This record gives sequence, structure tokens and C-alpha cells, in this order.
Amino acid sequence: MHAFSDDDHFRDECGVFGISDHAEAANQTYLGLYAQQHRGQESAGIVTTDGHSFNSHRGMGLVADVFQKSDIKQLQGTAAIGHVRYSTSGESGLRNCQPFSFEYAHGGIAMCHNGNIVNAPELRKELEQDGSIFQSTSDTEVLIHLVAKSKQTHMRDRVAEAVNRLTGGFSLLVLVEKRMVGVRDRNGIRPLVLGKLNNSWVLASETCAFDLVGAEYVRDVKAGEMVIIENGKVESLFPFDSTAPKFCVFEYVYFARPDSTLEGVNVYDARYKIGVELGKESPVEADLIIPVPDSGVPPAMGYAEATGITFQLGLIRNHYIGRTFIEPQQSIRNFGVKLKLNANRHMIEGKRVVLVDDSIVRGTTSRKIVEMVRAAGAKEVHMRISSPPTKHSCFYGVDTPNAEELMANQMNLDEMCKAINADSLAFVSFDGMYRAVGKPQSSHCDACFSGNYPVDIDPARSPQLSLLRFYSRRP
Amino acid sequence: MHAFSDDDHFRDECGVFGISDHAEAANQTYLGLYAQQHRGQESAGIVTTDGHSFNSHRGMGLVADVFQKSDIKQLQGTAAIGHVRYSTSGESGLRNCQPFSFEYAHGGIAMCHNGNIVNAPELRKELEQDGSIFQSTSDTEVLIHLVAKSKQTHMRDRVAEAVNRLTGGFSLLVLVEKRMVGVRDRNGIRPLVLGKLNNSWVLASETCAFDLVGAEYVRDVKAGEMVIIENGKVESLFPFDSTAPKFCVFEYVYFARPDSTLEGVNVYDARYKIGVELGKESPVEADLIIPVPDSGVPPAMGYAEATGITFQLGLIRNHYIGRTFIEPQQSIRNFGVKLKLNANRHMIEGKRVVLVDDSIVRGTTSRKIVEMVRAAGAKEVHMRISSPPTKHSCFYGVDTPNAEELMANQMNLDEMCKAINADSLAFVSFDGMYRAVGKPQSSHCDACFSGNYPVDIDPARSPQLSLLRFYSRRP
Amino acid sequence: MHAFSDDDHFRDECGVFGISDHAEAANQTYLGLYAQQHRGQESAGIVTTDGHSFNSHRGMGLVADVFQKSDIKQLQGTAAIGHVRYSTSGESGLRNCQPFSFEYAHGGIAMCHNGNIVNAPELRKELEQDGSIFQSTSDTEVLIHLVAKSKQTHMRDRVAEAVNRLTGGFSLLVLVEKRMVGVRDRNGIRPLVLGKLNNSWVLASETCAFDLVGAEYVRDVKAGEMVIIENGKVESLFPFDSTAPKFCVFEYVYFARPDSTLEGVNVYDARYKIGVELGKESPVEADLIIPVPDSGVPPAMGYAEATGITFQLGLIRNHYIGRTFIEPQQSIRNFGVKLKLNANRHMIEGKRVVLVDDSIVRGTTSRKIVEMVRAAGAKEVHMRISSPPTKHSCFYGVDTPNAEELMANQMNLDEMCKAINADSLAFVSFDGMYRAVGKPQSSHCDACFSGNYPVDIDPARSPQLSLLRFYSRRP
Amino acid sequence: MHAFSDDDHFRDECGVFGISDHAEAANQTYLGLYAQQHRGQESAGIVTTDGHSFNSHRGMGLVADVFQKSDIKQLQGTAAIGHVRYSTSGESGLRNCQPFSFEYAHGGIAMCHNGNIVNAPELRKELEQDGSIFQSTSDTEVLIHLVAKSKQTHMRDRVAEAVNRLTGGFSLLVLVEKRMVGVRDRNGIRPLVLGKLNNSWVLASETCAFDLVGAEYVRDVKAGEMVIIENGKVESLFPFDSTAPKFCVFEYVYFARPDSTLEGVNVYDARYKIGVELGKESPVEADLIIPVPDSGVPPAMGYAEATGITFQLGLIRNHYIGRTFIEPQQSIRNFGVKLKLNANRHMIEGKRVVLVDDSIVRGTTSRKIVEMVRAAGAKEVHMRISSPPTKHSCFYGVDTPNAEELMANQMNLDEMCKAINADSLAFVSFDGMYRAVGKPQSSHCDACFSGNYPVDIDPARSPQLSLLRFYSRRP
Repeated sequence: MHAFSDDDHFRDECGVFGISDHAEAANQTYLGLYAQQHRGQESAGIVTTDGHSFNSHRGMGLVADVFQKSDIKQLQGTAAIGHVRYSTSGESGLRNCQPFSFEYAHGGIAMCHNGNIVNAPELRKELEQDGSIFQSTSDTEVLIHLVAKSKQTHMRDRVAEAVNRLTGGFSLLVLVEKRMVGVRDRNGIRPLVLGKLNNSWVLASETCAFDLVGAEYVRDVKAGEMVIIENGKVESLFPFDSTAPKFCVFEYVYFARPDSTLEGVNVYDARYKIGVELGKESPVEADLIIPVPDSGVPPAMGYAEATGITFQLGLIRNHYIGRTFIEPQQSIRNFGVKLKLNANRHMIEGKRVVLVDDSIVRGTTSRKIVEMVRAAGAKEVHMRISSPPTKHSCFYGVDTPNAEELMANQMNLDEMCKAINADSLAFVSFDGMYRAVGKPQSSHCDACFSGNYPVDIDPARSPQLSLLRFYSRRP
Repeated sequence: MHAFSDDDHFRDECGVFGISDHAEAANQTYLGLYAQQHRGQESAGIVTTDGHSFNSHRGMGLVADVFQKSDIKQLQGTAAIGHVRYSTSGESGLRNCQPFSFEYAHGGIAMCHNGNIVNAPELRKELEQDGSIFQSTSDTEVLIHLVAKSKQTHMRDRVAEAVNRLTGGFSLLVLVEKRMVGVRDRNGIRPLVLGKLNNSWVLASETCAFDLVGAEYVRDVKAGEMVIIENGKVESLFPFDSTAPKFCVFEYVYFARPDSTLEGVNVYDARYKIGVELGKESPVEADLIIPVPDSGVPPAMGYAEATGITFQLGLIRNHYIGRTFIEPQQSIRNFGVKLKLNANRHMIEGKRVVLVDDSIVRGTTSRKIVEMVRAAGAKEVHMRISSPPTKHSCFYGVDTPNAEELMANQMNLDEMCKAINADSLAFVSFDGMYRAVGKPQSSHCDACFSGNYPVDIDPARSPQLSLLRFYSRRP
Repeated sequence: MHAFSDDDHFRDECGVFGISDHAEAANQTYLGLYAQQHRGQESAGIVTTDGHSFNSHRGMGLVADVFQKSDIKQLQGTAAIGHVRYSTSGESGLRNCQPFSFEYAHGGIAMCHNGNIVNAPELRKELEQDGSIFQSTSDTEVLIHLVAKSKQTHMRDRVAEAVNRLTGGFSLLVLVEKRMVGVRDRNGIRPLVLGKLNNSWVLASETCAFDLVGAEYVRDVKAGEMVIIENGKVESLFPFDSTAPKFCVFEYVYFARPDSTLEGVNVYDARYKIGVELGKESPVEADLIIPVPDSGVPPAMGYAEATGITFQLGLIRNHYIGRTFIEPQQSIRNFGVKLKLNANRHMIEGKRVVLVDDSIVRGTTSRKIVEMVRAAGAKEVHMRISSPPTKHSCFYGVDTPNAEELMANQMNLDEMCKAINADSLAFVSFDGMYRAVGKPQSSHCDACFSGNYPVDIDPARSPQLSLLRFYSRRP
Repeated sequence: MHAFSDDDHFRDECGVFGISDHAEAANQTYLGLYAQQHRGQESAGIVTTDGHSFNSHRGMGLVADVFQKSDIKQLQGTAAIGHVRYSTSGESGLRNCQPFSFEYAHGGIAMCHNGNIVNAPELRKELEQDGSIFQSTSDTEVLIHLVAKSKQTHMRDRVAEAVNRLTGGFSLLVLVEKRMVGVRDRNGIRPLVLGKLNNSWVLASETCAFDLVGAEYVRDVKAGEMVIIENGKVESLFPFDSTAPKFCVFEYVYFARPDSTLEGVNVYDARYKIGVELGKESPVEADLIIPVPDSGVPPAMGYAEATGITFQLGLIRNHYIGRTFIEPQQSIRNFGVKLKLNANRHMIEGKRVVLVDDSIVRGTTSRKIVEMVRAAGAKEVHMRISSPPTKHSCFYGVDTPNAEELMANQMNLDEMCKAINADSLAFVSFDGMYRAVGKPQSSHCDACFSGNYPVDIDPARSPQLSLLRFYSRRP
């Protein structure tokens, strides 16, 4: 949960929510999406079913803007799935809004997922050769084709057959007339949690969604597991030929909301403890620890605990950040960062400051923040990062720049320190990070830091897969 | 071209426009659609190609509202097809907006059509059995699937194979990277005209589109003909196994713009002459002939010529009709009609009046207009209709009520006259209508009047085909 | 009522409507404004009172767009006044939206008017010297200041004292807690009619507003008359020191709706008869008479009656004209006119055509229409105008160009004929026009044609009075 | 700067910004308002002048939404004033948007202010008796009338004469063609700071506005001071007959941004130190200190310092709060609070928690937060408040409920503790608060806590003055 939306940070990915057997399925899903808004701010959608017909509403924008009371009312039915995502704008944006809903030989089907299907291009090519047509660039459309083409008699088998052909990192929700299905890829890279709200089962990307609707957390869906919710019961299947848990460690560092607990680890707690480890590993003589809001706050507090240095909120966030701002022609130094953050000169002047942030992507924002803190009178500025250096792109659902645009991919530590104009720079070690998380590295994906990709990827491929020849405008 | 949009009239159908080899293909298409706005006011769309990639912009509303300058600019390419249609509102509306654009094994493909594919439900079912998925209720999606599944090597053969499976009334435009294709169904029920604008070929539903862009009319595409525009040349194919021209006579009576010329017949001229025939067939002693604007004007003038009775514009249209109006609780008599028309009491008072209108659908509007004219002081009100009684639904692309809602389907002439409270009522005869048109009945479809459907239809089927189980809201 | 909104035509002026003692005063006023929409399309407003407090709703746009059901519901009260006007857009537009409503020492007061107060600048200067402040450029604000500053005890005397200081052409409505007042300037230049709807009195600019709400026409308010509606009674006062009726003849020629009857003259009838006079005065050998829609239609029919030449609608209007259109860079000849009108080549080709229009302002539109008709194949094009040459600006409420921009101010008849590229050109004579109207020239203002201004105007003054130093943008 | 906008908290007041002699005056003002967005989120406006004419743009909404690039471009001129405010919606909202701009005998004049003029009703009545008319409910309109009616020759004397008649708490900006004026009321209740940006003088409510535009803080305008900026110079006048500094202490506790420094006191610093004092005064045995975000954070950190108890962010804010949310019919406990905050169960379960918040208004939110923390498993919940009990309404520009709606006005400490269901409750003392601020109570207004109003107010008067009889709707 990070305030920045500029190009120098990871963009959020996606969030899903589903609920069965609830008289107000759409309204609960709306709230479940709202609580997960930090996972995707550019589009939102809900599909409901009453067991016979389906209703759908999708749109560009925040959950609270996309859905009006009349929309929720129209979304009748007792089961629903919903989705938030980041997205390109325009008609193509709307085309790619999830959940997707189609009709096929066995009735209606709606799907949405969080993550990325790595072999979608190959599958798509194969489907096209067989006469399939595609309207979007979404992996989900590929998956629905696979389900529709399956000759299996039972829906669960059709879905199982289809997902078993997929490689990548994805958590998937499927809704048909009488069932809801949740699937996590064989490595469980992306999160998916199961909860209970009275007689209803709920599925979500993060537990914070359960808190808002008042659902009780039951368990995390397992890597490679497929849960089928039908007639008030949950059935569990493992359709993949093999499974090997590799949970995305970056969910702890940056993505997830601090009040969520994923795979048994509280996110706030993990972040705080990473700060403690970082303080032990890379202390520095200084007067003041200042976090870069918001995800830098818990590690900065942990760093303060470990080092005994005073912790203060010296960078104040502006809470009213809009999409666009008009800059004077006679431009303002560090304009983009100053719109979002202001350094409290009164506090900083004459001090040796330690800044704690969650990551460095391209490095441009870090440099501006260091400059802003220096301009507010800091004598020294030391940067501490609560994750290892980000050297590689993610191919499993996180929107990262190409590797060559990542500062840590192109520079060593000294070069980076110099480039961001800090007096010192340190990242937490892999060991420190996993000590803080309290789990072994072997059960996580940390490819963005280590380059160890649990799912084979074509090295020539860009992480931004752009398949479609259609470029469209907002309707 | 009729001002009424209330439920008691036919709703307009669709219009298409395409252009090849033009530096400003999108802008010309925009104007071509604008000139055909009377054929569909609820959505508009354009797809362009530069020979490699495609651009698309579609939206709900009038052409001038859907497209902004930036949209046109973004629609780059030298070939374009566009579409206007009436449509239900909401997300499902947007989903059904044409042109449709998909990607398939051979690249990109965009399509739009005017009309209705009668056997679309059967084809769709067959496709679903074979694993196809559907996102819209549009016939066009069925057709694109058929093209995508064809094993023919050449695009023209794929399209030919696909359209040959279709029955119904439709005029179709297809755009791929290097070609534009126009197809008219084997009966040529819906219009399609070919024109030339310098080095560009243009296709449109009506010639009035050519006038605005400055194109020269070349010829009507023939019933069952497929024209392929490629490398600046037009090639002609007849893919259907048989053809039998059956042009929709209602285009002359109501749909087409009076300044269009279709199948060699000028629409204004045909309407005027129908009025002359009607005057000869059903004269009446009266003081004043008043047309129901707008499509009643030419036949009323013809009726005046034939009968020698004074013609005056005694019903004044309000030019500022919006979508909704707020009626007082203490309601106003004939409110719906009075918002659109006002009777000029000064002219009407004490007179025997002949009203001339193009058709009677449910009869409710006719009754209100007669009442309004009586309330303005008319001594007698005679109604003359410039088409035969509308007794049957259209299954070939015109949005008509079910047959049982049509007044002429339920009542004889006397009953209708009484129901609309007129002193006399007469419709033009089939003979009179075709005399005015100057062409034989045998080469026309007049199923809405005669019940003689040139293409077999399932009698149990409603003209409003609603296939999809997905009901969606505005995005 | 003219379709053109481009710069080569008069822009419409304003319309007013008021109603007393009606349970649905706002809704009736909404309809009364809707029926007078042709008098002003750019803003609309209604103020209501329940005898104690006031409600107001104003906005930019058409009546049907400005008012939603919830707005009407909120406009509680049994008396209402409303206003439509043309207006510049933006915040200044909204500031100038009428009715104006203020609070002053005696309670609330709302006002609106149709017309122009010629001595507003002098009055404003005088008021400013005395400490008054102004927020708009509207004359109405000047008038409200005058009323507020009056030391008279009775409201009627305050209004009378204030209006007696005004010169110009204006029809004014005033609404206070318990009364509604209508005032027509001492020359009665602008129209104002009184009607009755059951127990309610209604005031409107034109009788067509009465037709829609079902009110009965009672009489025209007289030049210099002030009617006070209170306790269900109408009282009449003549507050001006002198009166001399000078009704605007251009209301008959162009402004008013053809179904309105003003000062006892039916507008359609007057226009038709002007056509007859024009036919007698300036016949021509030709094959076809074609009106320029819409206000050219009745005179063209009259011209046809007088000359015996065939009348046909050879220029077809596009009914879907939006605010802006995107023109190709490779521009289209006569683009602006072609968007609105199309010439029916089938009818025109090879014919000698007489075009009948209501007026020539700058002449640019006339030239384009002549060119378009020639391009459609006309052998000859003769132009006939149903008003005398427009040589002077209006200072009494009609938005006209400065005199030097008027073609007839700068050229003689031959020069004009050549400039618009017609084969012949004729205007109706003053005598012919007044014969058709059936009333003497002496009781009319025809300053735009004759230069005889009934109210003294400062010759140095531009008709577009721009007083305010504040230029504002749309809110 | 508080995230809550629900009825149980103080609503923000207003913010002003002005700049002279800058080539991009509007753009700088836009940024200056953006930085002060926390002072008013419902409307924004800017007026500029180029020394001759004025430009204005105002609208409902956030600064970044109200102003588009084209708006800023149109706001030409080298001097500007701007305003943000909370406001009722609708046309009346727009009417009351500041700055107000009027024309009067000496040219154009624009004004805006932050605060409340206590004797505005009396002044307004007096002005109405003298013939003035009013269009808004804003105090500013009263003030402009007073300036316009002044017989003084010099603008500074007219403003001085006018403001000397005012009582209340207000900081005022005035813009005329060649000058900008800033005035602070005789008690300096509301803040106003002076800065320099190269050759331009800037005035703002808070110093955080200077940081964003890169201006240097010069000094606070003094209580009762009038600064006149003209020809690049600042002149200082004291137009009031007497002055007595009484700065609003609540600016430190709640309103101002923590990075602002007002009257020499850094806001963050003051809040932190209040927490320290509170910790010394009212310690408690507990495991965890949790702030209520955002203004509770610094005092919670101070409280932690004083008590040695662990400080953690156990309440997580949702950053994507919209205006409205759709609640299920089967409603969710503490729904309103849960939409904004979530308690981190992992951290809280089984702990004795101290919550630190800035104030208690009606008490409803406090009770919900306590409940939510208990539901997350807290064993004990102690509430600590970083201001004295709020017992009285503010009459000087802060939108507070009537006194009887304030919990502390109706209950003693024990009753309040019980009502919010806390295990203990303590407020900081007056002494503690002023010790933290580092300044004497005598130079502050703390009427909301103490009831000691520095400016006489009519005890019968409601703080929400509603004068106008006009109720209007959104345009």
C-alpha cells in the first residue's frame, strides 16, 4: 500500500473477491473490492448470478465511483465475483476490465484472476489456429476459451483440464450458475484466502477484505489447490500435476495491506521486523529516522527500535492527490514528489537523517526525496531500503519496468548511493528479510530480487505482453 | 426520417459506411455516419486500419457526441468502416456497439452490418457446441466466428463461405488489414451503395452519405453480391448459391432520407408520388391538408396536387426534443404528442382537415394527433396513410412491435378509423404504392404489409431475439 | 424559429414565462419554457416562491437538460417565473442566467426579462457612484438595484418608479412573496401575452407556451402596461409617462414560432402572406420553388401560390445537428451548410430554382446555399427574401452584428446579388410586408430594416454592450 | 488534517492564497490552494488581474478537479487570490464560492476570507435598509458592500474603514487592479502568513503552501494588521482601533497541516509535545499505544515517549475513501468507521491498548473506534485526547455543532468514558496544552474548550447563520 503512482514505483496488481449464498452478494463484493482497492485503482467489476441468469457491471475508476446504488441493486443474485485492477485507459481498458463473462455451450461463465499466465501467448496462438477469436488482451479470455473447448462432462473437470495447461502465477475465480470456483497456481505465487460469513463462503486476495464484511478467516487456499463451492460446501481438488509453494515475498514488502495476514504472516509485523533486521545489519550514526510514507513507516519504526535513534514523521503526505496537476512553465524543483510529500523543515534542519523506504525501482523518486530532505536543511541523508535490490522484472502479475530500467540492475551499491545523492545506502539482506518474515526462502518467489524464477519464462520476452493489434479509445 | 421516438413508431435500424485509400478515412467515415444518423441514434463506432494495426472507437449516443477531435485523430489509417445503430443502453449496449473487432489466426478483422441474420440462433448454438464463447447478443459475433473457423486460404473465400451460411436481410462491411469487403444478402433486402471519392471507394447504406463527403454515386451493390476493395480496385463476387432481389419497400415509405436515391428511385419523389396515388385513390372533401411532420410532408404535398385542396403546415414541430420530460401530476391531455407537435388553431379552427402520415403502428399516436387537431377547432379530421396497413413484424432488421401489438393486425379499417377517432381513414393500396415507386412488387420485400416473407422465418420466434443470459449495466 | 445557429444569422433572444396560484407552478413553467425554447437555447432558469421563501434553479443548456425531476420537485411554491436565453458560455454565462434572485430590505425578489435596457450603462454608472456593486453584466441587476433603492412603500410603486427610469425594449417579470408583476416597455417592442389556466394567471412571451400547458389566451399586455397579479386578480397600471406602440416586426418575420399569435396576428399566416406579396412584387420564370428551412417554408408556399410555380422541399435538413463537427483537413466545400442541409440533386438537376429565405445577414450562408444548389445541377438560382434588407443593428434585445457587418448595409441590391452568386435577388417591400401583416408600419419597430429607432440610442454604442471587467470561465 | 469527514468531527474551515507580480500568478495560486486543500474540500476559486481586467474561475470540488489546464491558461494576469472552502452543494454552493468578484465605482474588486464575521447579520440589515441587494449568504458580500459605500478616496482607506466595522475572526485577501491587500482581524484569530518568492509577495493561511511553490517564509501578518502589496513593496497598516492577539489554539491541535509553522510554532512539534504532556499527566498501564490516524499520530508518539509504552500503527487507514458508500441492508457493525479504518487483529489481540485521538466531538466515532478495537481482541481500551474537552461552539470560522450536541458539553468525564465504552479516558489539561505549545494561554482563543470568547457573540445565535431566503439547486 504505497501512495505513489508515478512511474518510479511498482504499480499495483489486481485483487479478487467472491461470495456464495448471500442475499446481498453484490453489495458484499463491492465492499470486499473496496477493502482491496490498493491492489488496483483503475477498473472494477462485479458479476452476479441468481442460479439462472447473470448480471455484470464493470467500469474504469475506483470502486466507489464505478458502482452506484442502482448498479448494486441491478446486480441481483446470491453469488458474485469481483475484481479490481490497474489498467490502461480507454475502450481497450474497458474491454480488459474483469470479470469477463461469456456464454458457451454449458450456459454462462464468468472469470477473473490476479496474476499472469506466462504461456498465454502460446495458448492463444494455438486457439487462434483452431478458429478462436479474441477481443481483449487478457489472459482470462484465453482461459475461458480453454474451458469452453474442453470435452469434459463436469464443469470442475473442464476447469481443471484448462488450468492444468497454464503456467505462471495466478489466483483465479470462476462463477457459473450453481458454483463458484477458486484456483491458485501450482506455486501459489499470488495470494488467495478463504473465509466464512455466516452461511456464505468468501474468497479474497487478502484478509483485510474479510475484516470489512465481517467474515472470519478460515485458511489460505493452498498452492495448486482448486476449491469448489457448491450447495454451501467447499470441496478441494489438486488439478495440477505437481505443486511447489513459492509465495511472492514482495506481497509482504510492498503490496499487501499492513493489516492483512497472508500465509500466516501479518504484513505489518513482517515489515516492522524487516526494519529491525535492517537496523541490526546497517546501522548509522544519525539524529532522526524518517519513513517515506506509507509502506516505509513500519520498517522505519523497526529500524528505530534496533538503533535507538528518534523516529519522527518528517515527510508529510498530501491526502488530496488527483490524477493530473498543472505545473508552471517556470518549473518547480522535484515537482512530482513535492505534490505528494513535504519535508518538515522545522524538524529536519541541521539533522543527520535516515530515510527508510520499501524499495528503489528506477531511482528517480529516491533521488528527488533525498534532494527535498537536503533542501529542508538535513546535514546528512542516509537511505535504508526494506527489501533487497530490485534487479529483475516480475512475470507473474506485478507490473515492473524492464530489467534494464531498474537501477539495481544497472548499478552496484556505490553507484546507486551516488546516483540518489545519499550519504550512505543499504538494503536489507535476503537472510534478514526471511528472518523477519519467519519462513524459509525456499518456499517463496523472490525472482525480482534474486532472478530465480520458479516458473520458466522465455528470456526474450518483455514482461508487458502486448498481443493485440487493436488499440482503442475510451468509449 | 421521422421525428418521433416514442413507442408508437418504428424505431430506426442501422447505417453503415466504409472508405478505402483515404488519408483521412476516419474523418470521412465520421461524416458518412453523421449523414446517416437518422438510421440509428443510440450508438456509433468506427474502426480504422493502416494496413497493419487497427484502431477502434465506439460509444453510446449521437455521432457528434461519441466522437471528439482527439478520437478522430487517434483513429489512424487509410481505410475505415463505421456504424450507427439503435441500441439498448448500458454495458450490454456498449458490448453490442458495432463495428466489432477481433483478432484471429489471420490477423485483425472488423465487421458491422445493417439488418438481421435470421438463422443466427441456430448458428450460434452450433458454434457453442464446438467450443465457441460469446460476449454479445450481436449477429456479427456469430459471423466473425464463422469466418475464423473457415479453413479457406483466402480471406474472400472465408467470408464467402461464412456469409453463404447466413439467411436473413443484411448489408455487411468487413475490414481487414489490406482489404474492405461489402456484402448484400441474397435478396438485397437492406440497401448498400457504392461510390467514388477521387481515388477512394466508399460504401454506404444511403446516397445522402455520399453527398456530404462529396463522393460520386457509382451504383447499388447487387442482391447477393460481394464487393472486394483492394489495391484501389473493386472486384465483384456472388458467393450465394442463389439470389432474388427483394428490396425493402419501407425504406421508401419511412426509413431512408428523402434526399437519398436507392435502387434508382429518389425517396422524396417516391413519397410525393405515393401521395398523388393516395389522393387519386382516396380523395375527400376538405378545406386543408396537413402533414404529420416529417415523413408525412411529401405525400401530403402529393395528395394536395392530386386533390387540389390547400396544403399548409398546421402541425408545428418543436425542434428541441430531449430524451425525457417532466409531466405535471395533474397531467396534460395528449402530453407526449404535444411536446413534439402543436396544432396551429388560427389555421385549423372551423376547417375540414386531412392529415397525412406515413404509417400507423400501435395507433396511439395517431389517436392523440387527431384529438389535438380536433381540440384546435377542426370540424372534421380525415386520416390518410402513405403506406398499406402495417400488419406484420419485420424480421430483417427493422425494430417493430410484435404483430399482436400492431393496430392493423388486430382491427379492420372501420375499427381502426373509429379507434383513432377520425372521420375517415384510408391507406394507399399496394398497387398505388408500387406505381409511385415505379417498380414491380415482385422485386420488393413488403412483408410488414403483406406477410409475404422472402426469407423463411420461424413463426414462433419473436422479432426481438434475446439470446444472452447476461444483462449488464452502463459502464 | 430557424435551424441555423451559425454566425450568419440572427441569434435568438429570450423568452419568459410566469404563473401564479398553481400547485405545480415549477412544472408548468418548465413546460412553458420548453415551448419557447426557440427563443433561447443556451441557458434556462426558474424561481419559485411559496409566499415566504424562494427556490431557484438555473443552468446552461436546453430546458430539458437543465431541469431534472428532482430539480422540479425542489422548486416548491405556487408561483414561478422562468427564463430562457442565449448566452455566452462559462461562469460569466451562469452569472448572467436569469431569473436573478436577490434579497433586499423588503424580502426576496426575483426578476427576468426579454429585451434590452438601452440606458442601463448610465444607470449602472449612477448606481456605482452611490456605492452599488455588480456581479453580472445583466440589465436585470441594474433594475433590481433601482427597485431596492426606491423609497416607495408599496412594491408596485417601487417597481413602477424603477421601470419608469428605463428606456429600451423589454418585457419584464417580477416575482415577490405574494405577487407576480409583468411589465412591457412603453413601446411594447417585445411581446408579452396574458393567459388563464383554470384559476391561475399565466404570462408568456408567446402564445405557443399557452398551448402546451393548456392555458387559454386572454390578451396581449399593452405597450407601457404593468399587470399585477395578486390574490387571483389582475390589476393594470400604466407607470410610464407616455406610451407609443412599436411592436417588433421581426417577430413575425423570423423570431416567433409560426403557431404563435402575437398582437392578433398569426405568425405562420403573416409569413405565408409575405410570400404571396413577394410573389406578386418579384415574380420570376422558374421551374421550382425551394424554401430554406425552416422559416423560409411558409413564405415559399405563399410565393408558390402567387406565382403558380411548383413548390418542393429540395433542401433536406439534418435533424441531428450537434454543437461541433470535425472537418477533414482536406476541407469540404460549403462544409458548414452541408452539415445542416443537403440539396436533393434528383429534384434540382437541370431546373431553374427559386430559393426563399427569411433574411440575409452577413450573406455568407446565402452564398453557400446558392453554391450548393448550383452544385446539385440547378440551371438558374433566384433568391427571394421574405423581409426588407437588414441594414441596421437591433438595440432592443436581438443579438445582431454591428451594422458594418450586415451585407445590406454595405452593398446595394445588385452587389448583393452578385456577392451571393444568384441569378436574381429580391426582398419584399415595406409595403408588401405590412400588407401581409395587416397592420400599419407606424405601430411597429422596423429599425433593423429602416433605421428608424423608436427609442433614442447613442449612435457610438455597439449593440453588444460589454460593461464588465470580469471575464469568467465555466464553473 | 484529519481523515474523517463524517458528522462526528469538526469540518474543515477555509484557506486563502495570494500572490503578486508573478508571470504565472494563477498557476502558483492553484498550487498554493492545493497545498492547503485540507482546509476546505468542497469548493475552490481563483481570481486574477492583469492590472486592468479580471478573470475568475470557481467551482465545486477539489482544487485538482475544479481547475483544468485551460482554466489556468485563461486566468491571465500577474496577481491572483484564491480560496478553498467547505460548502453546501448546489447552486447556492456555487453562489457562495469565493473569491467574490464585483465591479463598483472604482473598478473591479475581488475578495475572499477565512473565518467568520460575527456582526455580519447586523451590517447586512443596515445595508439592506439603505438599498443594498444580496445574492449570497457570504460575509464577504457584506464586506464588499461596505467597501463600495465608503466615501474614502484611497482604496486602502476604504478597506480600512470597512474592516474596522467588522467583529469576528477572519483573515481577508482583497485584489484590485494594482494592489493586493491582506487583513487579519484585530485578534488575529485565524492565521495569515507572508512569504517571498523571488520578486513576488505571497500570502497564505499556512506555511505549507510556501513550501510547495518554493516561497520563503517572511513573517506572520500581525493581529489587526493590514498589509498592502503594491509596486513590489509591502506596506503595513493597523486600521483597527485596538488589537489583542488571540490566536486559535485549535489550529495546532487539529486544523493546520503538521508541516506548517504558525506564529513561530511548528504544528507537528506542538502535537508531539502535547502527547508528551498528556503522557505525564495521564499515564496508564498498557501494552500498546495506537493513534487514531492522522492527527492522533504525533501526540501518540509523544505519549509513547513519555510513558515508554510501545507505539504501533494498529489502525490502518483506507486511502481510497469516496463520498458515498453503499451499505448492505443487513448492516455492518460500525460500518462508517470500518470503511475508513481497520484494526489489525494480529497486533491488538490480548493487548491493553491506549488510543490517542485529537478530540471528541459528538462521541459517536470514538465509541465506534473503541468497539472496533475491542472486537479485534483488545483486553483493555484507554482513550487519551490531545486537547481539552470540546464544550462550546466556535463562532469564528470553524464549523462546529451546536453546544448541546457536543458530548463534553452534556457529560462529565466519567459519563463520557462510559458512553464511549473505554476503560479510562483523559484529556490534556489547559496547562499541559499551552506548555506544549510554548506560549501563554492569554494570547490564544480557546473558546471551544473554555467558553471564553474574545469577541462578543450574541448567546442566542446559532453558529450556523442562515440568512438567505433563497434555497437553490446545483446549476
